[in-house]
Amino acid sequence: MSMKIIIFGLGNFGMSLAVNLTETGNEVIGIDNKMDKVNTVKDKISHAICMDATNEQAYKALPIKDADIAVIAIGENEGAAIIATAVVKKLSKAKIIGRSLSPIHDTVLNAMGIETIIHPEQDFADRLAKKINLKGIVDNFDIDKNYSISELTAVPDFAGKTLEELNFQEKFNLRVITILRKKQRKTILGTTNHVHQAEGFVDKNTVIEEGDILVVFGLNKDVGKFCSRR
Amino acid sequence: MSMKIIIFGLGNFGMSLAVNLTETGNEVIGIDNKMDKVNTVKDKISHAICMDATNEQAYKALPIKDADIAVIAIGENEGAAIIATAVVKKLSKAKIIGRSLSPIHDTVLNAMGIETIIHPEQDFADRLAKKINLKGIVDNFDIDKNYSISELTAVPDFAGKTLEELNFQEKFNLRVITILRKKQRKTILGTTNHVHQAEGFVDKNTVIEEGDILVVFGLNKDVGKFCSRR
Repeated sequence: MSMKIIIFGLGNFGMSLAVNLTETGNEVIGIDNKMDKVNTVKDKISHAICMDATNEQAYKALPIKDADIAVIAIGENEGAAIIATAVVKKLSKAKIIGRSLSPIHDTVLNAMGIETIIHPEQDFADRLAKKINLKGIVDNFDIDKNYSISELTAVPDFAGKTLEELNFQEKFNLRVITILRKKQRKTILGTTNHVHQAEGFVDKNTVIEEGDILVVFGLNKDVGKFCSRR
Repeated sequence: MSMKIIIFGLGNFGMSLAVNLTETGNEVIGIDNKMDKVNTVKDKISHAICMDATNEQAYKALPIKDADIAVIAIGENEGAAIIATAVVKKLSKAKIIGRSLSPIHDTVLNAMGIETIIHPEQDFADRLAKKINLKGIVDNFDIDKNYSISELTAVPDFAGKTLEELNFQEKFNLRVITILRKKQRKTILGTTNHVHQAEGFVDKNTVIEEGDILVVFGLNKDVGKFCSRR
């Protein structure tokens, strides 16, 4: 299952991706035109190389033909990202994942036939905006335009009742997928802290406790209704 | 429900957040020290101001005392982000959301008592790494350390069978939450494209079709097992 992956651009996003993919057993080449970025990650990823990704000649030193995936993660310079994408597309059959920095960048990547176009900051911003607007939401994950999965804090009245007693699904038109429950944990320093742990599959006999977080699936409008009740 | 929200830093993340929160009915003040960022968003958010967030004197012009939420979204300069956080904490009772740019930045924000610390690029990178490693995963959402919700493409043998006939939950130890099904849609230009739409609540009688994406809840190791079968 191990893959050869080349990542262009070692900012916060590209670096996190490169480190994660190395740790999970892939061969990762990380590329940046700034030596300090290369030095920061060189011991955490398979290979870190300082080169200008807009210079086609520089690619001769890269095993670009053998790459399974190329991620163009350049985060500051649209022009450089687009040129790097074009060079990789010309020299390799790798699946290309392109990070778009603006609507016009999207248009260019689309026109180049790049199938996987990602928008890390915008995606995160949209999730955060939803959490800010719907108080009571801990986290959320959009399924499509209308449906989402949301983590909702349980109201105190729920405590001690089963999902069946609460008539939860019929009343709120939301289905509970699992419950996150606070667990105490000793740290290596001897202090205690709390983590939320999933309770696995739930059913109609699952009893809610105070402080539980309910992970629910349903229409956005029903999540909004649930949150505005409190 | 409308809130007064101040966002410091109008890069890709801060700008997306500011525009989204304005569109959803909040009063948003966006701040950046670069005039071109301010000009780009000035017609899309309530107020856009060019100022140096590290200069405490400049805050006199801001309605910082009335703010409900302050987001320190500065993405390039840790020092500036930390100073802005300290000034906001001193001058206002707003809930502060801090974007951390490194482990040491995390440590400082923790020490300052900032409860909500976010890592937009790292979170997105971790989700993308999981998708790359587990082929067959379309998208995924971590519930805790062990459990996640994943979107998995249905294998062709599933077509025409119900979840009960497939004995899905018992066989794979994964529970299907909903199904995403391809729908044709006419665009305004008269061409057709395809979107995946959720089918709402599913039950044991739901029939899988070819090309369906199954949204499942379960242990990471069971998702991995399912993906490695194909």
